[in-house]
Amino acid sequence: MSDIAPAEFRGDLPIEEFRRYAAQLIDWIAEYLAHPERFPVVPRVRPGDVAAQLPPAPPARGESLADVLADVERVIVPGTTHWNHPGFFAYFSISSSIPGILGELLAAALDVNAMLWKTGPAATELEQVALDWLRQLMGLGPGWFGVVNDTASISTLLALAAAREAKPALAIRARGMAGRADLPTLRVYCSAHAHSSVDKAAITLGLGHENVVKIGVDDAFRMRVDLLEQAMERDRAAGMLPLCVVATIGTTSTTSIDPVGEIAELCRSEDVWLHVDGAYGGIAAVVPELHDLMDGVHLADSLVVNPHKWLFTPVDCSAFYTRQPEVLKRAFSLVPEYLVTREQDEVVNLMDYGVQLGRRFRALKLWMVIRAFGAEGLAERIRWHVQLAQEFAGWVRDEPGWELCAPHPLSLVCFRHAPPGTSEAEREALNARVMHEVNASGEAFLSHTKLGDRYVLRLAIGNIRTDRRHVARAWELLRAATAKSPAAGPGARS
Amino acid sequence: MSDIAPAEFRGDLPIEEFRRYAAQLIDWIAEYLAHPERFPVVPRVRPGDVAAQLPPAPPARGESLADVLADVERVIVPGTTHWNHPGFFAYFSISSSIPGILGELLAAALDVNAMLWKTGPAATELEQVALDWLRQLMGLGPGWFGVVNDTASISTLLALAAAREAKPALAIRARGMAGRADLPTLRVYCSAHAHSSVDKAAITLGLGHENVVKIGVDDAFRMRVDLLEQAMERDRAAGMLPLCVVATIGTTSTTSIDPVGEIAELCRSEDVWLHVDGAYGGIAAVVPELHDLMDGVHLADSLVVNPHKWLFTPVDCSAFYTRQPEVLKRAFSLVPEYLVTREQDEVVNLMDYGVQLGRRFRALKLWMVIRAFGAEGLAERIRWHVQLAQEFAGWVRDEPGWELCAPHPLSLVCFRHAPPGTSEAEREALNARVMHEVNASGEAFLSHTKLGDRYVLRLAIGNIRTDRRHVARAWELLRAATAKSPAAGPGARS
Repeated sequence: MSDIAPAEFRGDLPIEEFRRYAAQLIDWIAEYLAHPERFPVVPRVRPGDVAAQLPPAPPARGESLADVLADVERVIVPGTTHWNHPGFFAYFSISSSIPGILGELLAAALDVNAMLWKTGPAATELEQVALDWLRQLMGLGPGWFGVVNDTASISTLLALAAAREAKPALAIRARGMAGRADLPTLRVYCSAHAHSSVDKAAITLGLGHENVVKIGVDDAFRMRVDLLEQAMERDRAAGMLPLCVVATIGTTSTTSIDPVGEIAELCRSEDVWLHVDGAYGGIAAVVPELHDLMDGVHLADSLVVNPHKWLFTPVDCSAFYTRQPEVLKRAFSLVPEYLVTREQDEVVNLMDYGVQLGRRFRALKLWMVIRAFGAEGLAERIRWHVQLAQEFAGWVRDEPGWELCAPHPLSLVCFRHAPPGTSEAEREALNARVMHEVNASGEAFLSHTKLGDRYVLRLAIGNIRTDRRHVARAWELLRAATAKSPAAGPGARS
Repeated sequence: MSDIAPAEFRGDLPIEEFRRYAAQLIDWIAEYLAHPERFPVVPRVRPGDVAAQLPPAPPARGESLADVLADVERVIVPGTTHWNHPGFFAYFSISSSIPGILGELLAAALDVNAMLWKTGPAATELEQVALDWLRQLMGLGPGWFGVVNDTASISTLLALAAAREAKPALAIRARGMAGRADLPTLRVYCSAHAHSSVDKAAITLGLGHENVVKIGVDDAFRMRVDLLEQAMERDRAAGMLPLCVVATIGTTSTTSIDPVGEIAELCRSEDVWLHVDGAYGGIAAVVPELHDLMDGVHLADSLVVNPHKWLFTPVDCSAFYTRQPEVLKRAFSLVPEYLVTREQDEVVNLMDYGVQLGRRFRALKLWMVIRAFGAEGLAERIRWHVQLAQEFAGWVRDEPGWELCAPHPLSLVCFRHAPPGTSEAEREALNARVMHEVNASGEAFLSHTKLGDRYVLRLAIGNIRTDRRHVARAWELLRAATAKSPAAGPGARS
């Protein structure tokens, strides 16, 4: 190693700068949250525009935070897609609430890494407490162990890894899967409408994309249990081993809800791990009238719901539950000498329950959100979103030339403009054009999916700041885009 | 689904509450950062103490943020291990700086999920820019593509997954590894001192813990390239396939630095992916005199360094670089219809480069840290930590009855009290007792490791608020703990 120059203590920036610029930033954020429509929801930038406004090299000397914050306003904000805009209806709409933002601020200041109980007793225990509260809010019974992950992608990966470990005779943790003649092909099942994170988990874990078996759905896009049973039988007959089923409460395309209870009975008789992906839809169970979303979940082995999706908690915060924490721990626990602690046998050490060693204090914001809104306040807000979606669906249903394309049990509506006499290809071009026109308005942001060969639009409500007028405005923009459209009649092209 | 009750718009808390409690929280944080020694670094709580102070069920109605913040002070803070305490010398010391905290606050307010360029153009492009800046700071040449992950555990997992995908003939992404007669056993190599995240990645990916081959080290705890070469030869002779080598810049136990250049030459001739784990140590390359830490890294395939470890960026922020982004993308890209965007072929969509679909705006805090301190300011602070560690090592070296246990090229010192005539078992008991006594003081927090059969203490400097007096105080506490110790002489027991 080279000789290094003599140094002296510099420390952090002066605390007065924290006070000054934090106050300035709080002011800015207050205005931002108070006027969430000030910026276009989809920014008017093209690829490369943001990077082109930033210097290609880091500054040699420190710059004033005044300059940094000025560049945030000049470059970053105009280049940002505003997920907190109440006209954000694309994908699954999310939003960060005031208690959640304050929780994240506090977590950044404390900077806890709760890899071990010892390195974050409060963070570790609050994670257990907050997730137990959330379990109760959803009307789930006891017997669940919860940990917070960053994303549902990771939560679902943990579920599949636990499913693998639930068959200890396979000895996959120790021996792996490659180069072994004694292992059967391992199969994972989900509906054709399950989220791509199931595929990605299977790919990552080395199970193989081809071994994710997509089960057909019924007219309401729900997994068909008869087809699931046939697929497992066929696989067993071919010498393969069914490892895990992923059922979805609220699929991404349509929020269809798989028949979890029936699937669970089948999984139990087949000795297959059942993971329930309720990343978006499961959260709605915090509305007491929607507790039945959790029907059958008490028979599942694991469950993911995302407070960062529809519970007003800033990204990232994914709640992963399992009824078999010892299996999850067996899959992931690894304690090198430098992480040994005296109390390790009497505490939860979060590092034992997943891939990541480092753990942010994510429970803080969730706990603050639950406390600030309370059970009733959370239910009221989710209920409102469901009601707005039902109203929007009513408007579509009643409008000639438009159609609903799927059931809408929660807060997502799939629909399209379908003028009589137009072909599927024409409808795709028409709706794609309409969507891009609406999105270009800066007032609303919708996304799309395909249901069979139908290209359909998705309007997803989930932002804490979305009122009826935002949904009404989106509907107005949609109709205006078709009214002036040359494609409104048969034979038109975009 | 049940009929749900009628609802009305509630929205977020009133903006005045944000202004009021944000100001209160900023005040609290300012005091916290200005007096970082106010709380004991290791809290005086026992397992269950924190949870016992919290209600077992969530509140029915929303509570005032005043009450929530009061409980933070009453329950959470006294139960927190204070990573921001300048006496935190355990594991690898980390800290969150003022610009980093403000960046995290802003990210929480914007709540961007940059899964696609379209859903976060600024977040996506700033991630590229900030990581390119960091690359330049470390003295690395061009040709690297960077993405921000939550942890080095995930970054290393991505590296091993890319290594697997770099052999397309294995067809593991599509076909998986189980039930295949055509696949050889796949092997991963790292030194016996590599981080446990390598093991965990291999376990997760289904490669198997047994297939992580631990290569012996030299007297300075550096991987022996001759032994690595022999291990690969032996494995090939046995029909196994060497897939990946992980070299470490700054191992966890001692911050030893593997000979990356030599290892890279071998990997190149063996057609094996080389991943460099510089999670902690790589960051030190931002000091110009320490650029040589990166010697040979230009020949590697991937690299991880963690700005949340030693670059004053709040957890989480792990920088993952690869020279083969197309392989990483091949390993992970999966674009369901609902995530298709028009510009997808001309932009970086972050979801294509890893397991997680959801992506926080983590680059913002890193960019703000780099700008606020500048290249020189960051180098000055890291240089100071290295200098302090060298001074501490000098104190240990000069003190009778104490010994240094490993080279200390960076800011970690491994040492122990080793009174003449004591046995290894006595020394372990003695040093463990000394460590627990020092940690119980609330003024310093050290951790331990084992080097062979030697139980040694680790003093790791990396907190932006650590000045010489904090290190001196730790040394004082250590000596005091042995001075009053009945174990200070031969034959004593703790």
